[in-house]
Amino acid sequence: MSIARGYAAFSPTAPMASYTFERRDPRADDVHIEILFSGVCHSDLHTAHGEWDGLIYPNGTDYPLVPGHEIVGRVTAVGAKVTRFTPGDLVGVGTMVDSCGQCVNCLHGQESYCLKGATWTYNSPDRVDGTTTQGGYSDAIVVKQDFVFRITHSEEQLAAVAPLLCAGVTMWSPLRHWAAGPGRKVGVVGIGGLGHMGIKLARALGAHVVAFTTSESKRADALALGAHEVVNSRDAAAMAAHAGTLDLILNSVAVAHDLDTYTSLLSLDGAHVLVGIPAEPHPSPSVANLIGGRRSLTGSLVGGTKETQEMLDFCARHGIVADIEMIRMQDIETAFSRMAKADVKYRFVIDMASMKHAA
Amino acid sequence: MSIARGYAAFSPTAPMASYTFERRDPRADDVHIEILFSGVCHSDLHTAHGEWDGLIYPNGTDYPLVPGHEIVGRVTAVGAKVTRFTPGDLVGVGTMVDSCGQCVNCLHGQESYCLKGATWTYNSPDRVDGTTTQGGYSDAIVVKQDFVFRITHSEEQLAAVAPLLCAGVTMWSPLRHWAAGPGRKVGVVGIGGLGHMGIKLARALGAHVVAFTTSESKRADALALGAHEVVNSRDAAAMAAHAGTLDLILNSVAVAHDLDTYTSLLSLDGAHVLVGIPAEPHPSPSVANLIGGRRSLTGSLVGGTKETQEMLDFCARHGIVADIEMIRMQDIETAFSRMAKADVKYRFVIDMASMKHAA
Repeated sequence: MSIARGYAAFSPTAPMASYTFERRDPRADDVHIEILFSGVCHSDLHTAHGEWDGLIYPNGTDYPLVPGHEIVGRVTAVGAKVTRFTPGDLVGVGTMVDSCGQCVNCLHGQESYCLKGATWTYNSPDRVDGTTTQGGYSDAIVVKQDFVFRITHSEEQLAAVAPLLCAGVTMWSPLRHWAAGPGRKVGVVGIGGLGHMGIKLARALGAHVVAFTTSESKRADALALGAHEVVNSRDAAAMAAHAGTLDLILNSVAVAHDLDTYTSLLSLDGAHVLVGIPAEPHPSPSVANLIGGRRSLTGSLVGGTKETQEMLDFCARHGIVADIEMIRMQDIETAFSRMAKADVKYRFVIDMASMKHAA
Repeated sequence: MSIARGYAAFSPTAPMASYTFERRDPRADDVHIEILFSGVCHSDLHTAHGEWDGLIYPNGTDYPLVPGHEIVGRVTAVGAKVTRFTPGDLVGVGTMVDSCGQCVNCLHGQESYCLKGATWTYNSPDRVDGTTTQGGYSDAIVVKQDFVFRITHSEEQLAAVAPLLCAGVTMWSPLRHWAAGPGRKVGVVGIGGLGHMGIKLARALGAHVVAFTTSESKRADALALGAHEVVNSRDAAAMAAHAGTLDLILNSVAVAHDLDTYTSLLSLDGAHVLVGIPAEPHPSPSVANLIGGRRSLTGSLVGGTKETQEMLDFCARHGIVADIEMIRMQDIETAFSRMAKADVKYRFVIDMASMKHAA
C-alpha cells in the first residue's frame, strides 16, 4: 500500500478538496505510475456532481470521488509479470483500467463495450478487490498493464498529450470505424474539448473536414485547427449547401438539439455519430430523413486499448496534441466553472507538480 | 396512345372508383405490359387518402390517382430499342419507373435514393412528358425497360409474386446491405405485409430469425413463415433474454412506439432499420443506448433495380412468394378497410381479370 495525494469530490455539492488516500501495491500485472499531468473532462464534472447517477452509474457515485481519466505519467514500479513497461517509461491511462477480457467485444479489442461492463478509471468497482477506482486528480495511480499506453511524444508535449487519452480516442475511434480518410467528407459539430481533437485528427487522416459551430467567434480557430470549411449552423443557406454530401458527422454537442439539421447533410449510408449524452432528450429524429438516405443515427463510446495506442502513436508521428490551458490542482473549481461555460481553449490540464507545493 | 381501365381515388375522401385513362404509346425504350396481378400496399392507401402530402409528396396528390406498385404482368409490345424483353415475357414493375440515371446513387444501382428524386410508379411527374404517373390498379402500364424485371416463377405463383415488387425488396435490400446470412441473428418487428416477407427472406438467406409481435395469435404463423423464435414484445423477460444479441432488426411497424425496446437488443455495431414512417414521431430514442453499443438507428427505402432482380431470382430459386388473399378490383375499398386494421394474411392482391367482368 502507498499513499496518494489528490483532490476529491466529497458530495455532489461540496467543492473539490484535498484528499489523501491509499493506492494498492502493484499486483503481478500492475504498473505504478507517478502522475505528471491530468486532463479535465466534462465527465469529471458530471460524475463529481452526481449528475450521471442512474444514467451512467447504476450504483450512483461513491464519495469521496477522485476524478480524472486523461492521465500522463512516468512508471515508478512494475509487478513481477509486467513485460511491457519498466520504471522511467512515459505512459498514459485513459477512461478504463480493466474489463472482463473474455466477452466477444473484449476479444475484439473493444473493451469500452465490454458486455460485463468495463472498469472505469474512477467510480467503478475494481474487478479483483471490489474497492472503488480513483482517478487521475492525484499524484499516483496503479493500473493493470493492459490498460497502460506507451507515449512517444517528446517530454515538452506531455501536458498536451493528456487529453488524447479521452478526448482524442473518443474522436479517433469513430473516425477509424467509419473510415475517415482521403476522399471522405467529415463534419465535426461543436468545437470544444472533443471537437477540436476531431478536427485535428480527421484532417491528419486525410479527410475533407467541415466544422459546424454556432459561435462565429470560433471560425478562425476552427480553420487554424485544420478545418477546410467552417459552417455556422444557424445559417440555413450555408447548411443547405452541404445537404446530402457528408459521409460522417461527429457530434460532440451534449445539450438537446435538432439532430435532423445535421442528419440531412449526410450522403447515402452516412453516419451521424453522437458522443455526448444530453441531460434532456434530443427532439425525436425524423424517420423520413433516415429512410430517405439510409442514414444512420448512432453513437460511439471512447475506444478500445488497441486503437488508443494506435491513436497515440499516430499523434506522435504527426505532432498532434491537444490545445490546452494548464492549471494548478488547487484551481480545479475555477476550471470546472469555466468548463461548464465552454470558456476554455480547449482543454484544462492539471499540472500535478502543483500538488507538491500545496498546503 | 391506348386506353387503360382501372380504379382511381378521385379525392382524399371519395371511395375508389372505376376510371378510364390513357397510357402513352411505348417510347423506344418502353415496354407495354398487360397487368395480371397488382398487390395492395399501405402506401397505396396513404397516397389515395392524401396522408403523405407534404411528407412524401412535396407537391401533394394529383387526383384522379391510380395506385399500385406491386405489378406482375405480360409484355404485349416493346419499343424499338428494347433489347431485354419480347412480347409474352412475364415481368414485374415495382415502386419506381424511372430515375435520373446520372447521380452517384443511380450509378451505384441505388435508384430509390436518386439525388434528383426517383420517378415513383404513381403520383410522380414523368421525366419525359411531365404527365403524372399512374400505377398498377389498372389493366395495362407502359414502363421504361430499365425498371421492368424478369419473372421466372411459375405461372401458378404469379399472383403471390406481385408483393415481392415492394414488400419483398423493401426487406431484401436491408437484409443484403447489412449482410444477413449464416451466423447472423436478425429480428423482424411486426408481422404484416413487410414483416412476413422479412421472415421468409431472412430465413432463406441463412440467418437466425427472431420475430417480434404484440399479437400472441401470430406466434404460430411466424414460426410457419420461418422464424426460429417468436418473442412477444410485451413480455419484458422474453425481451431481456435477447438483450445485446441481434445483429440486425428490421422494424416494419409504422405507428409511433418505443424504439429503445428493440435497439437495446442489438449487439455491438448492430443496426435497427426502420422501414415505416409513422404519422406521429416515435418517442425520442435513448442516446446512451446508441453510444453504449455503437448501435445504429437507421432506415431503408425499398431497393434498387439490381437488387430487385436479384431478389426475384433468389425467390424463384427458393420457391418464395408472399402469403396472399386474392380480391377483385371492385372490392378494393373493403381491402383498404381491412388492411388498415391489419386484417389480412398477409397481402391483398388484385386479380386484374376481375376488370374484364366489371360493369
